[in-house]
Amino acid sequence: MSTEAIEGPVLVVGTGLIGTSIALALTRAGVDVVLEDANASALQEAVYRGAGSVLADQIPALVVVAVPPSVAAQELANASQRFVEATITDTTSVKGRVLDDAITRGADPHRLVGGHPMAGRESSGPGAARADLLDDRLWIITPTGHEGEEHLARVRRLIATCGASVEEMDAAEHDAAVALVSHAPQVVASSLASVLVDEPAARIQIAGQGLADTTRIAGSDTDLWVQILRANAGPVAGVLESVIEAIQQAASALEASSSGASSSESNAGDDGEDESLADVLRRGKEGRSRLPGKHGTAATRYAVVPVMVEDKPGELARLFVAAGDLDINLEDVRIEHVLGRPSGLVDLFVRPEVRDGLVEGLENAGFDVRA
Amino acid sequence: MSTEAIEGPVLVVGTGLIGTSIALALTRAGVDVVLEDANASALQEAVYRGAGSVLADQIPALVVVAVPPSVAAQELANASQRFVEATITDTTSVKGRVLDDAITRGADPHRLVGGHPMAGRESSGPGAARADLLDDRLWIITPTGHEGEEHLARVRRLIATCGASVEEMDAAEHDAAVALVSHAPQVVASSLASVLVDEPAARIQIAGQGLADTTRIAGSDTDLWVQILRANAGPVAGVLESVIEAIQQAASALEASSSGASSSESNAGDDGEDESLADVLRRGKEGRSRLPGKHGTAATRYAVVPVMVEDKPGELARLFVAAGDLDINLEDVRIEHVLGRPSGLVDLFVRPEVRDGLVEGLENAGFDVRA
Repeated sequence: MSTEAIEGPVLVVGTGLIGTSIALALTRAGVDVVLEDANASALQEAVYRGAGSVLADQIPALVVVAVPPSVAAQELANASQRFVEATITDTTSVKGRVLDDAITRGADPHRLVGGHPMAGRESSGPGAARADLLDDRLWIITPTGHEGEEHLARVRRLIATCGASVEEMDAAEHDAAVALVSHAPQVVASSLASVLVDEPAARIQIAGQGLADTTRIAGSDTDLWVQILRANAGPVAGVLESVIEAIQQAASALEASSSGASSSESNAGDDGEDESLADVLRRGKEGRSRLPGKHGTAATRYAVVPVMVEDKPGELARLFVAAGDLDINLEDVRIEHVLGRPSGLVDLFVRPEVRDGLVEGLENAGFDVRA
Repeated sequence: MSTEAIEGPVLVVGTGLIGTSIALALTRAGVDVVLEDANASALQEAVYRGAGSVLADQIPALVVVAVPPSVAAQELANASQRFVEATITDTTSVKGRVLDDAITRGADPHRLVGGHPMAGRESSGPGAARADLLDDRLWIITPTGHEGEEHLARVRRLIATCGASVEEMDAAEHDAAVALVSHAPQVVASSLASVLVDEPAARIQIAGQGLADTTRIAGSDTDLWVQILRANAGPVAGVLESVIEAIQQAASALEASSSGASSSESNAGDDGEDESLADVLRRGKEGRSRLPGKHGTAATRYAVVPVMVEDKPGELARLFVAAGDLDINLEDVRIEHVLGRPSGLVDLFVRPEVRDGLVEGLENAGFDVRA
């Protein structure tokens, strides 16, 4: 991978979170960046933040289309026709349909390289952009075989200049992958959370960390997600049908168990239903174990050391200082809030081989370790 | 609520995680505790850990049945018949069916008070038990109106002695609530994770924090969950059917969109499908906002301050010390791992009014704040 910075000018079309972050990263690297956005105030804010200057009569060598999925194909085609020598790329989280549409609408396949930088934030817009948003992130590109070598190389230089890692995938494979790991989970989390809407508050009040985790992404932006899901409709629908099938298998087993037995105790007639239910749970556990671990390496089983801390300034600091003094690296931290009390259980995740040392060290330092 | 310690002896039937933790908490409070478990090595481990002594000829004033759901009803009936004066309670996470069964099998309704301490850990068994596992936890009891005042009062003293907070609910209402916030989410998380089993590793490798959160609880113990779900089959199946309906609404909208339109761009014909899809996402967002916030208070919107730290011992400590020096309380912490690189983005959650002070203070302290 070349580490040579990309040559300018680079035109960024769309100064939202991703577009402005890319522009800031390029500006940081000394690249000449020009900007365009249909929304004048977003454009002005990006310029004000130092992302680049408003496009005048510059001829860009590269155009980065960073607009919502519903308008991406048309903007790619427009860019291709306006700048007939330029390399054209995008940042849309769906690739196959958007790129096909762009070509249908007149984009030049020889100069078009689809991209998907895998980064985001809870907030959006140019105000939330950061020059380092893409640092160390995965940025997938989906070559078709029709693009010229020089255009592919230029997009690779763009990604390197932004500090991200490039990975090549087939567009259909990319879309199947994001349907599986991102788009379908979004619908499932939203659907689960949606059943809370009409329930009495007293039921919801006893919810713990499990439901909070399972529905966390249901808080995402509705309009943007409608566009993403629609642009990847086929693959997402396919995954959703598989999820429905699994839930239905469990629900049917439970319904049979509920109507057929008047007792909570096992008896021979329920073995088939129990097996059908256990199958879903067992497969879920197996599927869960396939998720990537920290830093994309194979999943590591960390040891958990729970510590009860007071909920006041400095208490977490005291805990982490103690761990640091022991020269033990914390792999992850989870704070579990305790209903109605001013204290919290903090789970420290460490490599199994250092667990005992951490427990002993924290106890010696006076911590309320609950391991 | 009385803070008077409960009188002994208390018999704990079942020395797993919950039973042994209750026994340890009672022993801590000076209560005379006797133990029983069909599994001799589990019983021995609980005794060894100081949870109490093996039941001999003592006559317990209270029996706590802390066994798996599939045998809880029978153990409650047995206890009621063996100790004809004793108060009988349990710790099963399902109440209606288990208590009805117990009475059918011969438990005395006058002395039976159902309970559900809402605590757990990633590990199980007496070795994972802690005297303080129930401290500050919610412990639901489900009076039927048939129990005697003295028995209800005794169970309340048990809960107070263990350091937990008591809350009364109707048994059916309890079961509907746990079906909604715990049991159905377990099935949904498992079902979503189950579709990963047969997928190529290359697709799963690009998964991020969203899927990890959504499927976290899918790692739970299969056998225990089959019993829990089966004992609460009707309410769980009902919630699952509502979840399926919501996912199906989204999937059908996507299938119509996928087959009907050859373009990723919006056009008039898709408005109905988009609206149907948006409806699920919008309701999900609304449902999600109804979850209890920290400490059971109404959900608070925290401000997020992302900070990039090196992945080495002491780095988190340095960050938390800096936050502590600013006298700012961290409400929550989330560590986001970056694919393939030795650094991590740490999201600090604070009250909105202290956000700017934290950002400025951390930047002054040399931190790589990405707000």
